[in-house]
Amino acid sequence: MSIAYPRRQRQLESLVKKLGLPVVAPVKWQLLDLALTHPTVSESANYEQLEFVGDAVVRLVSAIVLWENYPDCPVGDFAAIRSVLVSDRILAKMSREYGLELYLLVAGSATADQVGEESRLADAFEAVLGALYLSTNDLQLIRPWLDPHFKQLATEIRLDPARFNYKAALQEWTQAHFKVLPEYRVVEISQPQHNQERFIAEVWLHEQKLGEGKGRSIKAAEQAAAKVAFFALNTQEKP
Amino acid sequence: MSIAYPRRQRQLESLVKKLGLPVVAPVKWQLLDLALTHPTVSESANYEQLEFVGDAVVRLVSAIVLWENYPDCPVGDFAAIRSVLVSDRILAKMSREYGLELYLLVAGSATADQVGEESRLADAFEAVLGALYLSTNDLQLIRPWLDPHFKQLATEIRLDPARFNYKAALQEWTQAHFKVLPEYRVVEISQPQHNQERFIAEVWLHEQKLGEGKGRSIKAAEQAAAKVAFFALNTQEKP
Repeated sequence: MSIAYPRRQRQLESLVKKLGLPVVAPVKWQLLDLALTHPTVSESANYEQLEFVGDAVVRLVSAIVLWENYPDCPVGDFAAIRSVLVSDRILAKMSREYGLELYLLVAGSATADQVGEESRLADAFEAVLGALYLSTNDLQLIRPWLDPHFKQLATEIRLDPARFNYKAALQEWTQAHFKVLPEYRVVEISQPQHNQERFIAEVWLHEQKLGEGKGRSIKAAEQAAAKVAFFALNTQEKP
Repeated sequence: MSIAYPRRQRQLESLVKKLGLPVVAPVKWQLLDLALTHPTVSESANYEQLEFVGDAVVRLVSAIVLWENYPDCPVGDFAAIRSVLVSDRILAKMSREYGLELYLLVAGSATADQVGEESRLADAFEAVLGALYLSTNDLQLIRPWLDPHFKQLATEIRLDPARFNYKAALQEWTQAHFKVLPEYRVVEISQPQHNQERFIAEVWLHEQKLGEGKGRSIKAAEQAAAKVAFFALNTQEKP
């Protein structure tokens, strides 16, 4: 059933075409409309609940793509790759590729909020996935166009592991196995040489140091420490 | 296609019957066998990858059940309820209800590891969900028996919000909105009275105190602080 505003209906149909789907597809247009409505436009009828569903959908699609394409990949790498695939940065990038900002209804000061744009676009992208999932109760409207993106990204990440987000991967690992978060302790070298990596980060879990790393920024040092810890944990024997 | 060991095949068929599914269901038996094989039995052919898929499946089912049954529930409550539904405690409980420990192949010292049993059962439960999902590429083998569990649990949690895991919910919220984790600072009252709640926890985000709570244990005090913070954040206007 199409929605009551012919202009919005035509707009949504044009998005569905961009996704490579036929407009006669069993899309629930009211849900797609909701998925592209920011909370500033309506406090009660907006994309938040669909984003919640879509967040689970995007995690499932990334898990299946990894499962189908990398049967020999250690599950720790699955987690690390997925943390990139489902990151706001990647979801917002795909959102922009399909021009979602043209379809997203936003009101008030939020329209001028450039800083919030990335998370807004990522949220709307997830909400669109939620709407498409709930249109058919399966992934038939999603995988034909989302799989190729994820396959290519996963290949790129595996070729260039620097793109792994080790902090996110380590956190997911320690939470899954120990129900706690790793703790970072950073010190700054007091008299750094020019160009020196002047931050040293340690990552600790349960009063045990897991790894140490250096970097030019706190963030870089923490990522370096997380990488050491992540590999140490994932090459250990299972308890 | 059934698996090569008739005894194991009969065992798996008996589990499928317990789930209320017909044995002629399109179950991929090899996957179900893998889902019930602990890493101690085989380093390469075990439930780890299926658990990774199943983790996403269980999140999706819980999101859909909440979406379908509580259309007026704030999305913050969705997150709080889901963090209970997908917790090891609940998944292990359901695992036991279906007697999964009878089907799970475990080797070596892990069999005697009582402490690890809960997470082992939760992991195997997720892996079974992964195997059932991948058998049909949709939720048709899962929702008929999992939905009623989740509906009942969600109802119980909404009636008794003390069952919310506010620390988990708060963490999910701050990560989704600010990409950081809340920080807890706990002090112990130096000369506690008998029966007094002798720990005071504060929860901070971005150098701002979000809430404070007391408890007889550090954990209880942190949960109390998280609850205050969680409600404060979820009743605020969206930025």
